[in-house]
Amino acid sequence: MFRTHTNGELNSQNIDQKVTLSGWVQTIRDKGFMMWIDLRDRYGITQLVFDADRSSKELLESAGKLGREFVIQIEGKVIERQSKNPKIATGNIEILVEKLTILNASEVPPFTIEDQTDGGEELRMKYRYLDIRRNPVKDKLIFRHKMAQKVRNYLSEQNFIEVETPVLIKSTPEGARDFVVPSRMNPGQFYALPQSPQTFKQLLMIGGMDRYFQIVKCFRDEDLRADRQPEFTQIDCEMAFVEQEDVLEIFEGMTATLLKDIAGKEFGKFPRMTFADAMKKYGNDKPDIRFGMEFVEVNELVKGKDFKIFDEAELVVGINVEGCAEYTRKQIDELIDWVKRPQVGANGMIWIKFQNDGVVTSSVNKFYNEEDLKKITEKFGAKAGDLIFLMSGNENKVRTQLSALRMELGNRLGLRNPKEFAPLWVIDFPLLEWDEETNRYHAMHHPFTAPKPEDVHLLETDPGKARANAYDLILNGNEIGGGSVRIFDKDLQAKMFNLLGFTKEDAEAQFGFLMNAFQYGAPPHAGLALGFDRLVAILDGNEVIRDYIAFPKNNSGRDVMIDAPSSIADEQLDELELKLNLKA
Amino acid sequence: MFRTHTNGELNSQNIDQKVTLSGWVQTIRDKGFMMWIDLRDRYGITQLVFDADRSSKELLESAGKLGREFVIQIEGKVIERQSKNPKIATGNIEILVEKLTILNASEVPPFTIEDQTDGGEELRMKYRYLDIRRNPVKDKLIFRHKMAQKVRNYLSEQNFIEVETPVLIKSTPEGARDFVVPSRMNPGQFYALPQSPQTFKQLLMIGGMDRYFQIVKCFRDEDLRADRQPEFTQIDCEMAFVEQEDVLEIFEGMTATLLKDIAGKEFGKFPRMTFADAMKKYGNDKPDIRFGMEFVEVNELVKGKDFKIFDEAELVVGINVEGCAEYTRKQIDELIDWVKRPQVGANGMIWIKFQNDGVVTSSVNKFYNEEDLKKITEKFGAKAGDLIFLMSGNENKVRTQLSALRMELGNRLGLRNPKEFAPLWVIDFPLLEWDEETNRYHAMHHPFTAPKPEDVHLLETDPGKARANAYDLILNGNEIGGGSVRIFDKDLQAKMFNLLGFTKEDAEAQFGFLMNAFQYGAPPHAGLALGFDRLVAILDGNEVIRDYIAFPKNNSGRDVMIDAPSSIADEQLDELELKLNLKA
Repeated sequence: MFRTHTNGELNSQNIDQKVTLSGWVQTIRDKGFMMWIDLRDRYGITQLVFDADRSSKELLESAGKLGREFVIQIEGKVIERQSKNPKIATGNIEILVEKLTILNASEVPPFTIEDQTDGGEELRMKYRYLDIRRNPVKDKLIFRHKMAQKVRNYLSEQNFIEVETPVLIKSTPEGARDFVVPSRMNPGQFYALPQSPQTFKQLLMIGGMDRYFQIVKCFRDEDLRADRQPEFTQIDCEMAFVEQEDVLEIFEGMTATLLKDIAGKEFGKFPRMTFADAMKKYGNDKPDIRFGMEFVEVNELVKGKDFKIFDEAELVVGINVEGCAEYTRKQIDELIDWVKRPQVGANGMIWIKFQNDGVVTSSVNKFYNEEDLKKITEKFGAKAGDLIFLMSGNENKVRTQLSALRMELGNRLGLRNPKEFAPLWVIDFPLLEWDEETNRYHAMHHPFTAPKPEDVHLLETDPGKARANAYDLILNGNEIGGGSVRIFDKDLQAKMFNLLGFTKEDAEAQFGFLMNAFQYGAPPHAGLALGFDRLVAILDGNEVIRDYIAFPKNNSGRDVMIDAPSSIADEQLDELELKLNLKA
Repeated sequence: MFRTHTNGELNSQNIDQKVTLSGWVQTIRDKGFMMWIDLRDRYGITQLVFDADRSSKELLESAGKLGREFVIQIEGKVIERQSKNPKIATGNIEILVEKLTILNASEVPPFTIEDQTDGGEELRMKYRYLDIRRNPVKDKLIFRHKMAQKVRNYLSEQNFIEVETPVLIKSTPEGARDFVVPSRMNPGQFYALPQSPQTFKQLLMIGGMDRYFQIVKCFRDEDLRADRQPEFTQIDCEMAFVEQEDVLEIFEGMTATLLKDIAGKEFGKFPRMTFADAMKKYGNDKPDIRFGMEFVEVNELVKGKDFKIFDEAELVVGINVEGCAEYTRKQIDELIDWVKRPQVGANGMIWIKFQNDGVVTSSVNKFYNEEDLKKITEKFGAKAGDLIFLMSGNENKVRTQLSALRMELGNRLGLRNPKEFAPLWVIDFPLLEWDEETNRYHAMHHPFTAPKPEDVHLLETDPGKARANAYDLILNGNEIGGGSVRIFDKDLQAKMFNLLGFTKEDAEAQFGFLMNAFQYGAPPHAGLALGFDRLVAILDGNEVIRDYIAFPKNNSGRDVMIDAPSSIADEQLDELELKLNLKA
């Protein structure tokens, strides 16, 4: 037996017991006559003591050979500690070691296994198995596990069945971002890895499964943005005989259960906001509502005063930054520069200060007198001490720019506390979006999303105006999930494919099996998918999803620990009846 | 709202309530003046009634248009049923329908959605979504879900952490059966899909995760035997600071928990048998111990009696088939023909009857007198009425042949009751097996398996004799899991790779990251993986794993429903910088 207890377990009640422990040497403090070792495992740290009076010479010699990260087993007696450490569970005791076995030696690790390590990102990724020994990484993986268990238990209690859908599926011409997998048994043919189990979950509804879920790996072969992974995990769900309301209730229940566990409070009903309102009030379809700074549109107050920029703008809109009227010219200029960076792309902005002394002044005093300005501050509901920024231009662009400023100010002013949670449903998304590049409509959610019944007629007359029964779950300004009520009528589905520019043949080739399935009694159904990696990160007060993945890939899609992807043997290619066709 | 209740929910207590139900039309019985419809969903069946006296003409007309598998919604009143059906939960009531909405029509399905369907395997696979509507398929998927939940809850309670390991990993030259995945971002390079997360779980142990599990998809691109799938699911586990005993205890606890739930009884400690004993007693390393018929070796009783076949045989071994002495000559000849089939490959066999009248006779009376024969029956512990079969030849071959006969007789005599469960650990497997073809050793389990400490010296002198700390979990004659204590010392691991014929460079190229990890304090560790598909099938009293997979592939690795694998667009190949290189 390697241990009688873990290293997080012993306390004053165990004093005088003989115990066996195993673990890694975390630290060694050698005072000559006394030596202390912190022994670590997943569960905690236990202090070992060797002392010249009570320990044998052999034992002391043997302990002298230890180094950091050695794996050892000890036998000894639990004794009361002289200087107690109230910060750890085992802080009242230590083990007077009687026997020491070195189970495995260790080279000096390439970085320190401490909460604050000296290892850079790249080194830690290469030696990820050592990084995982560190509490901040280990704790994140354990947190992820616990969240997954809670999700599974909640959904199982709600009569959802976890069904495993296939990983080796069909590649579709639309699947530009599919990973493909050549089949040895079927040379020249390929499977694809799923970007989501969308069609399978719809088929499960047609199959009468009624309530399906799966925590499932999905795959996307695309240029990776800073925090995307080629393989990622979804909580994927679908329900039959439901309306949007039923889906929202179930998943706000699920999210509230997780949040309650973390934040220790009830979240009740989540607020809901239409896409149109979210864009108008926050310039963003995933607003962070932990703080205000709602957009205020002031066209009617600023136009016609000879200020050309505003006169020519489609929209003049601003935010009120509370309590910031005392910002210096330098601070304000820095913010103006910030919005002019190419990432934001604004031409500039106007400020209005409602000074603490009651005076209202602005960067456009030339065009607006104090009365004009006061009317504006009134519309914002600004008080003495507030600072207003106004931006102007094309409606969509200016909203996006102002949204960026709002988020930046939220960060700078400490209004985005990661331990505070503000969930929100955004609903009534547009069904379609026009793509300038290809000159056709794209499905905003996906081609299986149902239009709102009252908007179906718009498909004939003004498709871009049709709203979908689609919804996103937003948490702290991040989209953590999205879904929709699905089309379950084959004619409406055919019309959608048509609108999206599919020929009948294309639609048949790609989705024939789903269209076919619709003929045999498809029930009304709706669903949702949540990005599990992101959800877990945000619930844990973090936004870096990579930290919550045991073995993540880097921005080039590489696993630097195992060195993948890599070239394969010629015989393997030959067996697959493939040849490399490398461009220069 | 589509329903107030499911179709499995209403009973006498709901009489007089107004309800809304949705579901599929299972059956229609139209008696002219009365019409009954069985409405089905995942939860059950509810009988709907329309009647000429109480229903409006429009309603009756609308009901008249219904067909099988139409999706409908009804509103109505729960009333007491005339002829009750005690077999179903809702058998005491029916719904007098007041309003009927056809949610979706259905073509006549290609096979009947009944427990006993008229659809053949191929048709049902093509329309798997309709097959899933049938109770026998649906119930299996629900059973699978419940087992997965139980496994997860059990292991979580035992402090195991579910960690997701990557699906896109590194292909190794050894991985002849790897599926590979070309990377668009890294042209000419490939990921591989994991055949198991073996190295990752070992790295997690090195990373201090202590107890890891995962219910995870694994992949193998190989010719598919009757009941293999290119993607399959494993319960994958690993533990640190443990010995074999700890692993066996945890997983017999897990299996007993599942079995208790199904069979309603405690299973206590599972029996254990060495590989050597299993081969000697059952000719098989996965014996079905639901029935006896243990092998009895009789060399010393049969040799030297001028029966050349036995005199020349390395081993003469038999089984006692209780109560079958009255088998006719024809029945026995048929069994002899059975063992002579190429699948078994025996040259023949000898029978000895211990007749009910006490006389012992045999097919070799010419060589053995009754006293000789009685000695044999005594060694078998046979009683009057028993029938003994003896086979002879090369030790390994004859055991395999006799094992096939034993299993066949077990089946024919009804000794393999699928609702009876006999778990068993087979332990002490050989570490290596000699491969005649390549003229070198192969790892019997895998190259990371530790030899038994007392056999390590044999690696130098007689490696084939070394036993491993490896174990298989057997249930009803099926291997449902296997694992081993792992090597955690880099020198021993290097020696193993050497024994297995790897050059130092090969070992480095393929397992360098693991060998490297061993340098930084690898703890002792051991693990196990269970085939989840098979486990679930056997627990459910079945052996066909395909039935427990929602969307299985056929023997050619094809998903006939979605038609995968399939060819991909030239542009996709081009982007991957690949070319087809098809052989004639």
